[in-house]
Amino acid sequence: MTSALVYRSDEVTEYDDLAAARAARGTTWVHAGDADRAEMDRIADCFDLHPLTVEDILNDVRPKTEEYEEYTFVLVKRAMLRRGDTTFDEEIKDVPIGVFIGDDWVVSMTPDSAEPVARVRRAVDSGDERLLHRGPDFTAYRIIDVIVDEYFTLLDAIEDDIEAVEDQVTSSTELDTLEEINSVRRELLSFRKLAWPTREAVGVLARGDPRQIQEDTEKYYRDVYDHLVQLVDLTETYRDLASGARDIYLNTLAQSTNEVMKVLTVVATIFIPLTFVAGVYGMNFGDSPFNMPELGWTYGYPAVMIGMIVVALVMLGYFSRQGYV
Amino acid sequence: MTSALVYRSDEVTEYDDLAAARAARGTTWVHAGDADRAEMDRIADCFDLHPLTVEDILNDVRPKTEEYEEYTFVLVKRAMLRRGDTTFDEEIKDVPIGVFIGDDWVVSMTPDSAEPVARVRRAVDSGDERLLHRGPDFTAYRIIDVIVDEYFTLLDAIEDDIEAVEDQVTSSTELDTLEEINSVRRELLSFRKLAWPTREAVGVLARGDPRQIQEDTEKYYRDVYDHLVQLVDLTETYRDLASGARDIYLNTLAQSTNEVMKVLTVVATIFIPLTFVAGVYGMNFGDSPFNMPELGWTYGYPAVMIGMIVVALVMLGYFSRQGYV
Amino acid sequence: MTSALVYRSDEVTEYDDLAAARAARGTTWVHAGDADRAEMDRIADCFDLHPLTVEDILNDVRPKTEEYEEYTFVLVKRAMLRRGDTTFDEEIKDVPIGVFIGDDWVVSMTPDSAEPVARVRRAVDSGDERLLHRGPDFTAYRIIDVIVDEYFTLLDAIEDDIEAVEDQVTSSTELDTLEEINSVRRELLSFRKLAWPTREAVGVLARGDPRQIQEDTEKYYRDVYDHLVQLVDLTETYRDLASGARDIYLNTLAQSTNEVMKVLTVVATIFIPLTFVAGVYGMNFGDSPFNMPELGWTYGYPAVMIGMIVVALVMLGYFSRQGYV
Amino acid sequence: MTSALVYRSDEVTEYDDLAAARAARGTTWVHAGDADRAEMDRIADCFDLHPLTVEDILNDVRPKTEEYEEYTFVLVKRAMLRRGDTTFDEEIKDVPIGVFIGDDWVVSMTPDSAEPVARVRRAVDSGDERLLHRGPDFTAYRIIDVIVDEYFTLLDAIEDDIEAVEDQVTSSTELDTLEEINSVRRELLSFRKLAWPTREAVGVLARGDPRQIQEDTEKYYRDVYDHLVQLVDLTETYRDLASGARDIYLNTLAQSTNEVMKVLTVVATIFIPLTFVAGVYGMNFGDSPFNMPELGWTYGYPAVMIGMIVVALVMLGYFSRQGYV
Amino acid sequence: MTSALVYRSDEVTEYDDLAAARAARGTTWVHAGDADRAEMDRIADCFDLHPLTVEDILNDVRPKTEEYEEYTFVLVKRAMLRRGDTTFDEEIKDVPIGVFIGDDWVVSMTPDSAEPVARVRRAVDSGDERLLHRGPDFTAYRIIDVIVDEYFTLLDAIEDDIEAVEDQVTSSTELDTLEEINSVRRELLSFRKLAWPTREAVGVLARGDPRQIQEDTEKYYRDVYDHLVQLVDLTETYRDLASGARDIYLNTLAQSTNEVMKVLTVVATIFIPLTFVAGVYGMNFGDSPFNMPELGWTYGYPAVMIGMIVVALVMLGYFSRQGYV
Repeated sequence: MTSALVYRSDEVTEYDDLAAARAARGTTWVHAGDADRAEMDRIADCFDLHPLTVEDILNDVRPKTEEYEEYTFVLVKRAMLRRGDTTFDEEIKDVPIGVFIGDDWVVSMTPDSAEPVARVRRAVDSGDERLLHRGPDFTAYRIIDVIVDEYFTLLDAIEDDIEAVEDQVTSSTELDTLEEINSVRRELLSFRKLAWPTREAVGVLARGDPRQIQEDTEKYYRDVYDHLVQLVDLTETYRDLASGARDIYLNTLAQSTNEVMKVLTVVATIFIPLTFVAGVYGMNFGDSPFNMPELGWTYGYPAVMIGMIVVALVMLGYFSRQGYV
Repeated sequence: MTSALVYRSDEVTEYDDLAAARAARGTTWVHAGDADRAEMDRIADCFDLHPLTVEDILNDVRPKTEEYEEYTFVLVKRAMLRRGDTTFDEEIKDVPIGVFIGDDWVVSMTPDSAEPVARVRRAVDSGDERLLHRGPDFTAYRIIDVIVDEYFTLLDAIEDDIEAVEDQVTSSTELDTLEEINSVRRELLSFRKLAWPTREAVGVLARGDPRQIQEDTEKYYRDVYDHLVQLVDLTETYRDLASGARDIYLNTLAQSTNEVMKVLTVVATIFIPLTFVAGVYGMNFGDSPFNMPELGWTYGYPAVMIGMIVVALVMLGYFSRQGYV
Repeated sequence: MTSALVYRSDEVTEYDDLAAARAARGTTWVHAGDADRAEMDRIADCFDLHPLTVEDILNDVRPKTEEYEEYTFVLVKRAMLRRGDTTFDEEIKDVPIGVFIGDDWVVSMTPDSAEPVARVRRAVDSGDERLLHRGPDFTAYRIIDVIVDEYFTLLDAIEDDIEAVEDQVTSSTELDTLEEINSVRRELLSFRKLAWPTREAVGVLARGDPRQIQEDTEKYYRDVYDHLVQLVDLTETYRDLASGARDIYLNTLAQSTNEVMKVLTVVATIFIPLTFVAGVYGMNFGDSPFNMPELGWTYGYPAVMIGMIVVALVMLGYFSRQGYV
Repeated sequence: MTSALVYRSDEVTEYDDLAAARAARGTTWVHAGDADRAEMDRIADCFDLHPLTVEDILNDVRPKTEEYEEYTFVLVKRAMLRRGDTTFDEEIKDVPIGVFIGDDWVVSMTPDSAEPVARVRRAVDSGDERLLHRGPDFTAYRIIDVIVDEYFTLLDAIEDDIEAVEDQVTSSTELDTLEEINSVRRELLSFRKLAWPTREAVGVLARGDPRQIQEDTEKYYRDVYDHLVQLVDLTETYRDLASGARDIYLNTLAQSTNEVMKVLTVVATIFIPLTFVAGVYGMNFGDSPFNMPELGWTYGYPAVMIGMIVVALVMLGYFSRQGYV
Repeated sequence: MTSALVYRSDEVTEYDDLAAARAARGTTWVHAGDADRAEMDRIADCFDLHPLTVEDILNDVRPKTEEYEEYTFVLVKRAMLRRGDTTFDEEIKDVPIGVFIGDDWVVSMTPDSAEPVARVRRAVDSGDERLLHRGPDFTAYRIIDVIVDEYFTLLDAIEDDIEAVEDQVTSSTELDTLEEINSVRRELLSFRKLAWPTREAVGVLARGDPRQIQEDTEKYYRDVYDHLVQLVDLTETYRDLASGARDIYLNTLAQSTNEVMKVLTVVATIFIPLTFVAGVYGMNFGDSPFNMPELGWTYGYPAVMIGMIVVALVMLGYFSRQGYV
């Protein structure tokens, strides 16, 4: 999978032999995609890279920039959203890509497929002028820039999820909603874990600390840095939106309980006393004149019914004033 | 839309040709409103501005100050409240305005309409003495000052929203209230995202770091800086008020549930036992002397009714002591 | 309202003319209370104060210390509690006081009445030895010290409010309580907004950064600084107490709902089944031997009543074991 | 109460006269316990201590280290738990102890009793070798060390309170529990307010900034510093435990409400429909063949009863599947 | 338990005498496991270690790095999960291990058993090339690296607990769940308290501050440092997951209460009015034509029953539209 090419001015040559490529005049770019440890070690040997940097790429280490005598090592991570069966089964998968910037060479390697690097490669092949004329620091910038651009796409997808959740939140009180909000929060957390150290790593390049970054290229790295600052900002905003959605969800639930209680209270409070009255007139007291004489009245029943209706109306009025109905 | 003018002492001349304007003696101010990329690139070419600064204006980048050899680039953002159909549909819209401060020239450009810049322009036209005599750093200060003054208007509108919400919060438990509070919080968040980096950007100018800022003008930038500190402070206070309103709202809801429960409990607790008693005397037991002899008593009914009233009064007394009624 | 006086050793002279006062030997102290812009500008002219510092006093700017060539400008704020109709209508009102410390003069001015400054003035008049012998930095210290001492009185009043709320919180679940707690929190927030930057401003003087602060006086400013640190600390403690009171309040409410529910549950759960039994024996079935023969029994009624009492007691026992009663 | 003693090598001499003690060869240690302002001023005079440091000891100022030309002033605070009538009436009482480290003398004074200082004094009397040989910085270290050791005892008592609360929290939902948790949180807050600035104050000594701290003694102060770091850490852990206890308490309450509701729901939901059925058969309709013919059936009553039992069992089954019973 | 060995190139010699081991050419490694104070003091004497460092190992002090003239002292802690009877009885137990890095010697000691050190010892015995050739700083790195690797195993166990809790959380509302979540949070807190200062301590070595750390070894310490950064990150993520689980748990409870309320409301609201109607027709009014003539109607009973069924269906329809059923 390793490909080596050397370019200068308007000439792009492909090489099979790494050592020859390194020796050739012009900017040498060696890229190893889907590379295993052996492959990486071979390249590291040829370019005198520290063996622990290869380990850093293979282990799950945070993005960073490390300055060495002969080169600068930048570890960045590509991020993709891997959807599961349900919406809230989504996860962020990251792919480490190591970029080494030498004086007249750049080496990139990754244990996975590296679409972003391939895109820069195509730009070289199609004769992108700035890539051909500027040095290895500019080639590295292009790779990192493409990776950071992908972050925006990723964050757009998360934003869509948040909007879907926000729509859902007021209409229903399903249990899933909270899990979905938690899933979004988890994704934002993962993303922040990625974007934050990347920002620091690119910040080092933007300040032009490493010897390999030329002053002309600094501004380009500063541009990527600004994008990363913006990404971290967006992450914060989205986290806040997710929290807001959760608050509304929990409130909708409390509101629903309150509504349910009101219905019960209104119905029970009106009918329980009336039922009591009906129960009273269902008692079987004997024929003493003191025992419920109203049962013998001609208009007893209508009178009781009217009384009940009045009581019910009064209570309804009270509840309506309280805003229960 | 591009207009170029040169002023010195009490003389204001308009130019059609950018290069001629730049060459003329005095302070040259070139402004491009509603400008597209081509327009901006043309000006950038003429004043040797870095192409990526134009990108910064067109992309949605955070406010910042960048120092270059020949000029200082300040990116600020105008902020407006765009109201939707409902109150809580409001959003903060921001418009980037790029200001470049050179040794004897100032360039301002924006892809949108720029009312604040137009106001400073009118001040020049009407012969504002300080603007005419002091250099390009003072002109830039005036533009930034007008933009920051607009922030106060914006924050006043948000404060009105908060007060409206606070009034609403204790009186009703409508679901909308929480969404409105969330909307206000979101606006404050957006505004803070704007004011915070602007404060940093102006802070650089207030400390007089860039060569183009003269010592006399520093104090003016420090003034704008103080305003921005105050704006960020206000944002915090308003966020706290919004949180307080949310707490009161949620409490009103819990309080309402509690009230509803009390009504239900009092009514049900009083009448359910009484209904039971009435039910007992409605039972159809045979004529055994042990079977409810009280049904045959002369004063059976009044006795039962008085008993019931006593029970009800005792319970009411208990509830009243408990603070339920 | 402007008064100028010059003092040295044991001599205090009052002047009408500002310029003469400035020229006189000794420490010149010019104070302007209830001053309008014109008044302030006149003094600023005489002492060569920067016009924007006058603006700072008139606008609502945060407390700060600014060092200039010829003087040091300290902006502090007096704080008073303005009570409204109800307790939770209270608000903190602040009054800006600008103090300028020159080499042999001190200028203080405020757009409002300035009781604290008047107190220091009286100390001068009564021949306070230290004030007369030490320089303008000591006079400024005395003014700031009196203002900070007032902060303690203010915080004591807020503490009283918190204690009143704490007493109220466990006894009642009135809606007002939360608003009162919120009001206290708001006051503490306002106060913190005042004390924090004042601490920073005095810190600059305590470190003796400005040329006008003599080494002997630094310790006095450090003392004020310690007081301000303590005030900020107290603010935090009080905020925490207010949060604790809110927690207890909300819990009291949840507790109350729980209690109400228990009462309802116990009463309803005991009487609803009994009412059902009474209802059963109130059914009008015909004279078949299978239709409720117990109605014809001699001891039917007592048997049913005893059964009911047993059921009720069993349930009461269960509820008592559950801690409901 | 003031005692002065001078020690060198293995000789400990007590002095009555402060000036004589100061002049004597060896390390002079003057201690004033239960001292009033006059007493302190007298010592301050003798050792040329700044008058404001005496004020610092008498006022309630935060622990701190202040470096002067001739001595270093360390203000530390002894902390004791003052128990009230009930457990949650506990409070942390602090006693300020001022320690002044000179070149060959050390002064300690406090307005209260000072058990920790007395312990070091006893160590001197009993001929503690290190105390007698090393300088005043070591004596000061011993005093501070004993005070910090007492902090651990204090924190142990608070830990016991937390464990008592944790035990109580799951078993009952008494209102007191929350007040007790709040009381513990308040104590931890007070303690943190003490330990944090003490850590800073000792940190200054541990870094060996003041001239009076010899290099050999630094490590001892670093040791005290590590203890204070650990104390602050413990405070955080205990705060977290207290929060956890509060969460469990509030949850227990919500759980209890949920349980109460379930009991009510199960009983009411089963008996309310049955009572309705009994009510139907208690209606007094005339003898039309369409009016409740089942009342005339031979097995009407058993049929209705069996029907009711079936309904009740079906509902119980449903509730049991839902986990209500 | 103390073992001393000296190695250089490919030669490993064991020594009985500490002084002889120290004097021998090559890297001397002295290790004391399960050591008591006397043992430690003996080694400290031989290698001129500060007596307080031994105290640091024996007391429960935070991990740290301390630089001395002749050696660097690193205090790290091994962490193990000690399971109790129930899952949420788990606790993190830590074992302090002190490592002293000299110019040509390394001393490690611990009051407990030290499996990680034994592993490095075995690597030396089996002739690990890098260990034999590189100096004492590399040996110390290997010890620390093994300890930090164990942290990952520990965190994996905690992750399993979290996943178990997450599965449990949606299915049940048992009280234990919250205690289990709290237990996990407590473990994460303990672990963070361990990992955070360890990160700082290793950071000092990674920056190569101490003289004893050679430039070649720095990268290895940087590697451990990266692992610790990752561990602290993971801790944060897990804390967030635990919080999310708690939110879902509390919501499940609120949801359950809401469901229970709906069941009660639907059943009670439908049957209470119907029972009232049945009660009305059970009243015993006399034979006046105005007293319930419907009781005498031929189709009275069916009419009432149909009316009741219609009311019940209408209410069911309403509840179904409200989402209650």
